[in-house]
Amino acid sequence: MFITFEGIDGSGKSTQARLLAETLRKAGHEVVLTREPGGSPGAEEIRRLVLEGDPDRWSAETEILLFTAARRDHLERVIDPALAAGRIVISDRFADSTRMYQGLSRGDLRGLVDKLHALMIGREPDLTFIIDMDPETGLARAKGRGGTEERFEDFGADLQRRMRAGFLDLAREFPDRCLVIDGARAPEAVADEVAAIATRALG
Amino acid sequence: MFITFEGIDGSGKSTQARLLAETLRKAGHEVVLTREPGGSPGAEEIRRLVLEGDPDRWSAETEILLFTAARRDHLERVIDPALAAGRIVISDRFADSTRMYQGLSRGDLRGLVDKLHALMIGREPDLTFIIDMDPETGLARAKGRGGTEERFEDFGADLQRRMRAGFLDLAREFPDRCLVIDGARAPEAVADEVAAIATRALG
Repeated sequence: MFITFEGIDGSGKSTQARLLAETLRKAGHEVVLTREPGGSPGAEEIRRLVLEGDPDRWSAETEILLFTAARRDHLERVIDPALAAGRIVISDRFADSTRMYQGLSRGDLRGLVDKLHALMIGREPDLTFIIDMDPETGLARAKGRGGTEERFEDFGADLQRRMRAGFLDLAREFPDRCLVIDGARAPEAVADEVAAIATRALG
Repeated sequence: MFITFEGIDGSGKSTQARLLAETLRKAGHEVVLTREPGGSPGAEEIRRLVLEGDPDRWSAETEILLFTAARRDHLERVIDPALAAGRIVISDRFADSTRMYQGLSRGDLRGLVDKLHALMIGREPDLTFIIDMDPETGLARAKGRGGTEERFEDFGADLQRRMRAGFLDLAREFPDRCLVIDGARAPEAVADEVAAIATRALG
């Protein structure tokens, strides 16, 4: 089973991905916890190439190609082998992040992302948790945490609101696999709900 | 006008690209001489990522994505702006190299290369010189020259023969823009023929 976590910055998706991995391991499952962009040595190198340096160094189209190259490597080297070995794969972000961020920055890019995904990636998660949260709360959490991905976090409240709406749109677009989780509660309460849903899906 | 040079290693295409640029500049044209993989700062970084390290570090599909990302950057930052400004662009290798090398390594990849090209690149050269040469001669020249691209040059005579056939196939596939040039002659004789053809095409 392939499980992904999506949501705005500061929504707690990384924490929730980690907590679910711990819970499932305690229940006896073999779990691979990974993340995007990156997740394999090659993909991490491509990630650095994309995220470091001048924000305008790559056009949106080149950036989509680089993210797709990183995702292809991540899929081939980490996700597919683990799934083939019967392990559970949990990824902090996957293709939905590219769909949402690129589609939001320029409407015409969403079609391009989808075509590239169909051609080069193909795989979709079995279950996607969209950790939903009021953007002001998410932004405060993201700023408090710091980190190096300023390109994706230094967006301000208005863009965070549009991102939140974008993720909720994705949940409506892929209702078979996407579940919206209220992330404004205590992390333990969120984790309990996530674990219950994942355990039921694994059953 | 967008002119490309293709051919097996050691065929002299880089020399011929340079000589044509010199000839056209002397005739008063503004010429941008470039090369692939690479050709723009971002594309050169991607080139290093692809060509350095373990030859098996990238799958063929990831490599095609990275080459397409590099080509997109090269196109946006160098080729398209130069053509829009009325300059002549001469590139030592372009998409035909990807078509030939990837298609040769695995037949099913050619379709993938074409779909990615149609989606992300689109542009074709106006004129492509395929510098044709007996592979033994080309291989001896490539070995004599040295260089860092061992992945593409350390192939041996049999693969060089298949590459020669692959480039000749491309010339048949794109007869409107491809011209096969006998590269076994003295470089000056080859350059004279190339310059005459390019000058006529520019006329």
